[in-house]
Amino acid sequence: MNNRKLGIAIIGLGGAVGTTMVAGIELLKRGLIEKTGLPLAELDKNLIEDLADYENIVFGGWDLYGENLASAAEEHDVLTPKQFIAVEEELRKIKPWRAVGNKEFLANIKGENQFSGNSHLSVVEAIGKDLQIFRAENNLDEIVVINLASTEKLADEGNEIFNSLVSFEQALDENSTEISPAMLYAYAAIAEQIPYGNFTPSVSVDIPALIKFAEMNKVPVAGKDGKTGQTMIKTAIAPAFRTRALKVEGWYSTNILGNRDGLALSNKDSLASKIKTKGSVLDDILGYKVKDHIVDIRYYRPRGDNKEAWDNIDVTGFLGQPMQIKINFLCKDSILAAPLAIEIARLLDLAKRRMTFGVQEQLSVFFKLPMTKTKDAIPEHALHRQEQMLFQWLKNEISV
Amino acid sequence: MNNRKLGIAIIGLGGAVGTTMVAGIELLKRGLIEKTGLPLAELDKNLIEDLADYENIVFGGWDLYGENLASAAEEHDVLTPKQFIAVEEELRKIKPWRAVGNKEFLANIKGENQFSGNSHLSVVEAIGKDLQIFRAENNLDEIVVINLASTEKLADEGNEIFNSLVSFEQALDENSTEISPAMLYAYAAIAEQIPYGNFTPSVSVDIPALIKFAEMNKVPVAGKDGKTGQTMIKTAIAPAFRTRALKVEGWYSTNILGNRDGLALSNKDSLASKIKTKGSVLDDILGYKVKDHIVDIRYYRPRGDNKEAWDNIDVTGFLGQPMQIKINFLCKDSILAAPLAIEIARLLDLAKRRMTFGVQEQLSVFFKLPMTKTKDAIPEHALHRQEQMLFQWLKNEISV
Amino acid sequence: MNNRKLGIAIIGLGGAVGTTMVAGIELLKRGLIEKTGLPLAELDKNLIEDLADYENIVFGGWDLYGENLASAAEEHDVLTPKQFIAVEEELRKIKPWRAVGNKEFLANIKGENQFSGNSHLSVVEAIGKDLQIFRAENNLDEIVVINLASTEKLADEGNEIFNSLVSFEQALDENSTEISPAMLYAYAAIAEQIPYGNFTPSVSVDIPALIKFAEMNKVPVAGKDGKTGQTMIKTAIAPAFRTRALKVEGWYSTNILGNRDGLALSNKDSLASKIKTKGSVLDDILGYKVKDHIVDIRYYRPRGDNKEAWDNIDVTGFLGQPMQIKINFLCKDSILAAPLAIEIARLLDLAKRRMTFGVQEQLSVFFKLPMTKTKDAIPEHALHRQEQMLFQWLKNEISV
Amino acid sequence: MNNRKLGIAIIGLGGAVGTTMVAGIELLKRGLIEKTGLPLAELDKNLIEDLADYENIVFGGWDLYGENLASAAEEHDVLTPKQFIAVEEELRKIKPWRAVGNKEFLANIKGENQFSGNSHLSVVEAIGKDLQIFRAENNLDEIVVINLASTEKLADEGNEIFNSLVSFEQALDENSTEISPAMLYAYAAIAEQIPYGNFTPSVSVDIPALIKFAEMNKVPVAGKDGKTGQTMIKTAIAPAFRTRALKVEGWYSTNILGNRDGLALSNKDSLASKIKTKGSVLDDILGYKVKDHIVDIRYYRPRGDNKEAWDNIDVTGFLGQPMQIKINFLCKDSILAAPLAIEIARLLDLAKRRMTFGVQEQLSVFFKLPMTKTKDAIPEHALHRQEQMLFQWLKNEISV
Repeated sequence: MNNRKLGIAIIGLGGAVGTTMVAGIELLKRGLIEKTGLPLAELDKNLIEDLADYENIVFGGWDLYGENLASAAEEHDVLTPKQFIAVEEELRKIKPWRAVGNKEFLANIKGENQFSGNSHLSVVEAIGKDLQIFRAENNLDEIVVINLASTEKLADEGNEIFNSLVSFEQALDENSTEISPAMLYAYAAIAEQIPYGNFTPSVSVDIPALIKFAEMNKVPVAGKDGKTGQTMIKTAIAPAFRTRALKVEGWYSTNILGNRDGLALSNKDSLASKIKTKGSVLDDILGYKVKDHIVDIRYYRPRGDNKEAWDNIDVTGFLGQPMQIKINFLCKDSILAAPLAIEIARLLDLAKRRMTFGVQEQLSVFFKLPMTKTKDAIPEHALHRQEQMLFQWLKNEISV
Repeated sequence: MNNRKLGIAIIGLGGAVGTTMVAGIELLKRGLIEKTGLPLAELDKNLIEDLADYENIVFGGWDLYGENLASAAEEHDVLTPKQFIAVEEELRKIKPWRAVGNKEFLANIKGENQFSGNSHLSVVEAIGKDLQIFRAENNLDEIVVINLASTEKLADEGNEIFNSLVSFEQALDENSTEISPAMLYAYAAIAEQIPYGNFTPSVSVDIPALIKFAEMNKVPVAGKDGKTGQTMIKTAIAPAFRTRALKVEGWYSTNILGNRDGLALSNKDSLASKIKTKGSVLDDILGYKVKDHIVDIRYYRPRGDNKEAWDNIDVTGFLGQPMQIKINFLCKDSILAAPLAIEIARLLDLAKRRMTFGVQEQLSVFFKLPMTKTKDAIPEHALHRQEQMLFQWLKNEISV
Repeated sequence: MNNRKLGIAIIGLGGAVGTTMVAGIELLKRGLIEKTGLPLAELDKNLIEDLADYENIVFGGWDLYGENLASAAEEHDVLTPKQFIAVEEELRKIKPWRAVGNKEFLANIKGENQFSGNSHLSVVEAIGKDLQIFRAENNLDEIVVINLASTEKLADEGNEIFNSLVSFEQALDENSTEISPAMLYAYAAIAEQIPYGNFTPSVSVDIPALIKFAEMNKVPVAGKDGKTGQTMIKTAIAPAFRTRALKVEGWYSTNILGNRDGLALSNKDSLASKIKTKGSVLDDILGYKVKDHIVDIRYYRPRGDNKEAWDNIDVTGFLGQPMQIKINFLCKDSILAAPLAIEIARLLDLAKRRMTFGVQEQLSVFFKLPMTKTKDAIPEHALHRQEQMLFQWLKNEISV
Repeated sequence: MNNRKLGIAIIGLGGAVGTTMVAGIELLKRGLIEKTGLPLAELDKNLIEDLADYENIVFGGWDLYGENLASAAEEHDVLTPKQFIAVEEELRKIKPWRAVGNKEFLANIKGENQFSGNSHLSVVEAIGKDLQIFRAENNLDEIVVINLASTEKLADEGNEIFNSLVSFEQALDENSTEISPAMLYAYAAIAEQIPYGNFTPSVSVDIPALIKFAEMNKVPVAGKDGKTGQTMIKTAIAPAFRTRALKVEGWYSTNILGNRDGLALSNKDSLASKIKTKGSVLDDILGYKVKDHIVDIRYYRPRGDNKEAWDNIDVTGFLGQPMQIKINFLCKDSILAAPLAIEIARLLDLAKRRMTFGVQEQLSVFFKLPMTKTKDAIPEHALHRQEQMLFQWLKNEISV
């Protein structure tokens, strides 16, 4: 236990996940919920004693929709009625800061709570200012920025302006339309020496320019795309097929979801980003290319904030004979995502104190497409090996 | 690679699994199938170089049904027509030896290919004789006995006659009705210094008397109950719930299967044995008692040798909110079981050469209810940790 | 539209279904819900103009648990928080009358709100008195008794005391232990010339003695066992297999449910009643015996008042080739049952005015095991033909 | 029974469905299979006595792939090994006639067994010639043409050249690129006074010009798109939701299939045709617009000729409360389709003798998007009412 006061600044604060994080911590403070779903809550005391306490976390953040979090919570309908009533007052006090709008990168989201500045640098400066005020007003020991914004159009990662900090900063200066909002937030956070975690599939800190910037500025960063539902199950079960030498002939995954994020994904450019982060896990775990790995994502309004994943897996076993496994996961996006985002923030805060900067590979367990320290290295995708990596780091057995 | 000639003596040779083992090895010898489904086939050469080659395995065994294996294969309908034609001649040459019948322990199986002897000791002697002839006729370097017989009625494990070798041998002498056929085979194998693996839920070598006997006679033994379908998936996915701190509120598992084993299980005494071995895995993996863990097994004729497992899992996550996972596994019992039984035999053979006797915990990955060296120790159930244990042993990193 | 005031006297008023009926009508009166789920609500005006209006229905009834309906509703957790608040006051006013307890027939239910009388005739008299008071206090035009009590042990339907009214009344006189609570309620209702509908699998009005009594006393009766979830789907889809000449080789149905009814069914005597009413529908619809039709019901606490039905259907088609259909129905027992029970009551009231007495076959659409006018006739089970039968009766095209 | 000799000329003869039709009838002739899957086989004798016997059917037809049917059967892998061996010789004798190729309308199919003629009229003439030869060589009493070709790009149905026979024939003359292969076959069949059934989603006889032509030439026609798997189940179960007044809030259907037809559908133009015929059934059955009805079709190679349909249905019931139904249909496309196509041919033959020309609405039970006699009429989609319509026509109760 310790008394650090940790601020989490959320990009997309008013979304379902952000609202759930805030409400969850408030409910914990009041003793109204257990710590179910928080992966680090029940570990051995000595592993977690250096992490900031859940009860000492404070929230702020940006959102294109300016409504307060009580209104947002009503819209997202994640809390039970009793839970809502218990924290309504607290949520009503929190109003998202103005955010970066950019129709190029996020076509289906139309919120109007936007920065007035129209140059990249003015936006970066405004973000930095927000963070400084957040720290000062709440007397925070540390801040971590977590990106929870809706998925952006897939940026052109190969573009040379992303290859070095010099070229990136020049492009910033020139207001390049290649630079996405997600990159602006990441740049601004790093400039303020604030750790940054990317819970979305958007391209942000995962470009050479910003990784370099993080290392130079001594900032830990992590990403990307929270591994919550279908992919989490996939990376738990695929290793078992390898253990049993069952050959995966095909894997068809479809997802139906109905919240604001789902709507963003019904735009095909955003969808491309998402599909990308879901794609390579199988081959890396199994050690061969699965020829027929299909991932569909469908906006389906009746599902609301719930998410349904359906997987059909075709394997062959001994004598080359075929078998099938089908998995249906009726889950709640925000309920799965919020506690992971909280743990990422606590761990990035610890990493900074431990002086481990740049990409934090030991956080792979939380991500669909873990960033690696070495460019183009194959990330570890198997859930149990990722967990082991994290535990070893917590025990100080490895420095990543 | 090596040239050891390994004999596998199967209790229940004419069953679907036994027949599939024999046919599979014959197909491998002819180059007609890949090594899919054989867990150790593709490991690093240095891990597996001491194991007997698949192609050097020879089969024999006992069965209450005396028909040759070609007839058995037709009945079980596991092979494709092409596979059947390719090995029919070879299968037709193999006829099971007479087996131990006992209506007390196996009510639904009525085969008439039985030992004539009516004392326990005469049966033990006859089994030993079978093994000696098998070795001599095939010029074998080693034999391993694998129990694949239909599940027996749950023996009274607490009975004091099982607690020491002395009392067990006295009970043998007195033809105690408490002693099951499975125990007679195990006793006879150990007496011949032949390694023994129990792929069934029946109580056999897992009693103090026989473990002691194995240690004394320098024989490696392993069990019990092959982890093939539903429980294999269960032990792959349950650790993920722990990783994500999702609380398992209930787990309902039902199985439908239609082969001879399924028929045996439609007897409620045999079913009790089976349910028992499936029961404790969850609690041990999760670290708490799952209050509503239900396992149903149903004989359903239309499924034939295929097996269908359906799992419904209720978990709660952050904010105490409920989610559901449903898994449907359309699998083939023999296709999953046969390669595991082959690997168990190869590993027991190696264990004997490595001079590791008694219970072989490093084989846990193959069993639903792994035997432990220490009485009443909690076995490791998580599939990935079991696999790790085996790999470490293969690398000689641990001696179990 | 009309102004009839209809009383529904429910056996098992405080159960989940009864409470939902009362709450539903109260919510309708307040305009807080649509008429979704009420099968007759949206039919052509001329078909339904003679039925009592939903808004003119008043409730009373018996229950072994004496708590008021607001407390019952909290326990059953069927209403949403908003719905509960809207009708809480009204529900709190309704307290079940004392009911008939009988541990012989209902082992798992232990409520103490019981009649003090200890002879069958005193119980019959008390029930009659309750109905008279209910009518007088509410100034009702008609009462209908609906049985919603937990499933009783299967009565010995073949017993000769049930074969004639004379022998039944003699057995009543002699306090025969063969007579179940469900029969006492049915007898008492008929004696009061009050229509009676049996929504449960218990044996009640479906014995020759009571059918005769109903005809003599000019009382319409109907049953039995509300067709809500799995069987409803089964009788919708089985006719399609016949339409396509797909041969049903096997049908495995399992149910998991966690409410008070589920608990009652975890008693194997009650379960036998339930399984019985679910059993014959397939053969009657398909025109041949399905050899492997298995129905399992499991009490599974985490499901609460929700009910999950899982069906696996094996069919063969052209060339004798096999196919599978799997259906998973995540439903809410009370939500499906309550509106059907309301419609049954409205239709029995109409039947009495139309002077059609005895068994009401045109209500088959609501029942798993429809009673038939002719003893041992095969009931119509196909959902669409049952519906057609009801519509024709409503149009006065048939007198049943 | 009768001795009519009926020829079925199949467009796409070498496809999986066509091959299965031919093999199935051959197996029936040899008494090697039952009549399972043939919807009219087991009806009352008096209903079906005028239909041509299955055993008197002879096959011919066109295909872009010129291989004989034994080779085709091997590729499609629909027959069991025993079935294949039994009819191999017969199948080897049948070689498809040259077919109409058109990359505009069918992009993914590349067969080279094409007509040499390059004007529409020469193609029509060649088709007519094929039919005349087929009749003469086999001494047929009647021929029926059945379209089983891969789905074409959606033709522009609104184009005015399709509105009258005059404009259509002028467009023919001018080799309009708007005219699809499917239309040429239909035109040619009608010109020969040969009944025509469209088992595919392609636009063919369902344009005013060709319907007029059929009526003028006294030819019965029917279509379109065989209702085999998912849509068949959908139209069996959707009426049940109406019966129970359960409001369908959303219906998500996804299909995975891996045969040649699936490959054709992976072209987005062909897919558009298919989706269209699957789209309207729900709204027509339920009587309101289902806002969230999504139909996905995915080419998934491991499924082969099998087809898997997965439906998720969200309904609300009483009190507005949500429930879910999930249906998984593991079916075999050709096994479901072939017997329906055979019955359509037998019924069109009968219709011609009964002098009922033009659109045959009584065949609706076989089609996803039944053609109606009256333009823009809403077709009957409910499976049971469609069946009733057919039975009444067979009984001569209605003339359609």
